[in-house]
Amino acid sequence: MKKFINQINSLLDDSLTGFAKAHADIIRLNKQPYFITRSQPKTAGKVALISGGGSGHEPLHIGFVGAGMLDAACPGQVFTSPTPDQMLAAAQAVEQGGGVLFIVKNYAGDVMNFEIAAEMLDCLQATVLVDDDVSFPKTHSTGRRGVAGTLIVEKILGAAAEQGADLAYCQALGEKVSRATASLGVALTSCTVPALGKPTFTIDDTEMEMGVGIHGERGRATVSLSHATDIVEQLCHAIEEDLQPQKNQSVLLHINGFGATPLMELYLIYELAAQYWQQRGIHIVRSLVGNYTTSLDMAGCSITLTLLDDELLRWWDAPVHTSHLRWGC
Amino acid sequence: MKKFINQINSLLDDSLTGFAKAHADIIRLNKQPYFITRSQPKTAGKVALISGGGSGHEPLHIGFVGAGMLDAACPGQVFTSPTPDQMLAAAQAVEQGGGVLFIVKNYAGDVMNFEIAAEMLDCLQATVLVDDDVSFPKTHSTGRRGVAGTLIVEKILGAAAEQGADLAYCQALGEKVSRATASLGVALTSCTVPALGKPTFTIDDTEMEMGVGIHGERGRATVSLSHATDIVEQLCHAIEEDLQPQKNQSVLLHINGFGATPLMELYLIYELAAQYWQQRGIHIVRSLVGNYTTSLDMAGCSITLTLLDDELLRWWDAPVHTSHLRWGC
Repeated sequence: MKKFINQINSLLDDSLTGFAKAHADIIRLNKQPYFITRSQPKTAGKVALISGGGSGHEPLHIGFVGAGMLDAACPGQVFTSPTPDQMLAAAQAVEQGGGVLFIVKNYAGDVMNFEIAAEMLDCLQATVLVDDDVSFPKTHSTGRRGVAGTLIVEKILGAAAEQGADLAYCQALGEKVSRATASLGVALTSCTVPALGKPTFTIDDTEMEMGVGIHGERGRATVSLSHATDIVEQLCHAIEEDLQPQKNQSVLLHINGFGATPLMELYLIYELAAQYWQQRGIHIVRSLVGNYTTSLDMAGCSITLTLLDDELLRWWDAPVHTSHLRWGC
Repeated sequence: MKKFINQINSLLDDSLTGFAKAHADIIRLNKQPYFITRSQPKTAGKVALISGGGSGHEPLHIGFVGAGMLDAACPGQVFTSPTPDQMLAAAQAVEQGGGVLFIVKNYAGDVMNFEIAAEMLDCLQATVLVDDDVSFPKTHSTGRRGVAGTLIVEKILGAAAEQGADLAYCQALGEKVSRATASLGVALTSCTVPALGKPTFTIDDTEMEMGVGIHGERGRATVSLSHATDIVEQLCHAIEEDLQPQKNQSVLLHINGFGATPLMELYLIYELAAQYWQQRGIHIVRSLVGNYTTSLDMAGCSITLTLLDDELLRWWDAPVHTSHLRWGC
């Protein structure tokens, strides 16, 4: 896969510099170590929300820094965990008296490095682990991976923190959203990590990778490519088995593109998923369709469902003003 | 290239139905014939802005229907012009006393069908032709193609129409924006039209297609793949020769992804393009980076520059609330 690139070792710096220039009204870039913060002044007493992870999933997480969502994001190298010094420096930069809440996708490197940063950080703090990927059973040795549901956790916690909720409430809310959220993805092609220059996995023209991870990790099974209705049924069925939504349940339905799948196909997937849930008496009251948690240039998508109650719906609807998620303000 | 699809002949309907469900707060879908309108009530006396074109370029145009931008969009089949009956029905649905302004990308099919619709439409009307692609010389027999600059014309005219500008002003403004805007694109891969199922063109792993059109039309030349700085210099140089921006000129810089190029690379391109213009004393006062005028699953990007004055800047900054462009409201 060909790339727009000068040198591998300058890609992240150039890209983040461009991101910061293009969105100077919303965010600022710190270098040495890298982290993104809001450009607006801090709010005394507010809980500071910090996330991060390997780059290559943009707009996650840097595109979600701003009013009503994250206070800071720490980008690692492509598909590589950020380092504890990034997380520590970001926390020290955005801590504003209400404590720090780390939102961490469940990957060994991220978990370990956020833990080290937390140990070094000398203020009130807590962590929310996101593990929404139902590709693995709940009993899997390393737990489930955090995927596209992370955005939903970040949005909902961002709204609560913005409106003055305290650290204990935000942590409990994060765990509640994470429990209420399930995702499953499917890849039609592999992604290509720039430093490797070749696809992460090989997949035949007649196959698809069911339960793929957002780094192109193999998932549940490599299966025959089928038509869209069948694919959606496989994805939704796994989510249904996990979340067991009851009739008349209100939900948020999020169709996430992995990067190279056209919007036209993502809206087709949305329509078929909406039909699946509607046939079961589930009420889709909020929707989000687009490329939000990507895997570089991978073709494919994931479906995420979050069970909503009045509390979660209120926070989801609250104003948000970031470079890549914006409404109500 | 594998696709999420059931049947070719139901793809557009399913996808548009999903789009309308996901964005029911902003738009409505009419079937037989297909067009998208705003869900909010009409404003008496307002100029109605209508655009359209082949599908496969999403979010262009359907994602730009809403307050402060288009009143209606007519989606054709993939890479196929919409038909005059779509444009006529859309115009009749959204005409609100101020006349109808068609915004048309310069492609033979679009131009012809919008002309037929205009002849059949019995109200005050005008047309703005967008031809921002500097891949062809100005003297080319069919003129230049309309590409990513179309979004900028639609945004600026949308703001003026929303604030009560009359048809003559909107038409003159559209021609002014179109003259002040130049684009050039480069493809690293071909796109694949679903009904064909194979790439539109072949391109070697060591080559790129300079001056590519948004349907994968071959452009200026198939050249050797080079590093990102060289690619950006080639694109910007062609735009500079065409627009001849003077030192201290204020501009809008738009980096558009064709669909399969990761945001990380688009922000790298933005950074390099920003450096190019800054070195020439050009002031980048507004930016837009992302996949806005796509070519299905093509990897590549285009650079668009619009020369701004106070009038254009004011309209660009005005509130917009569509499914895919939103600020200030």
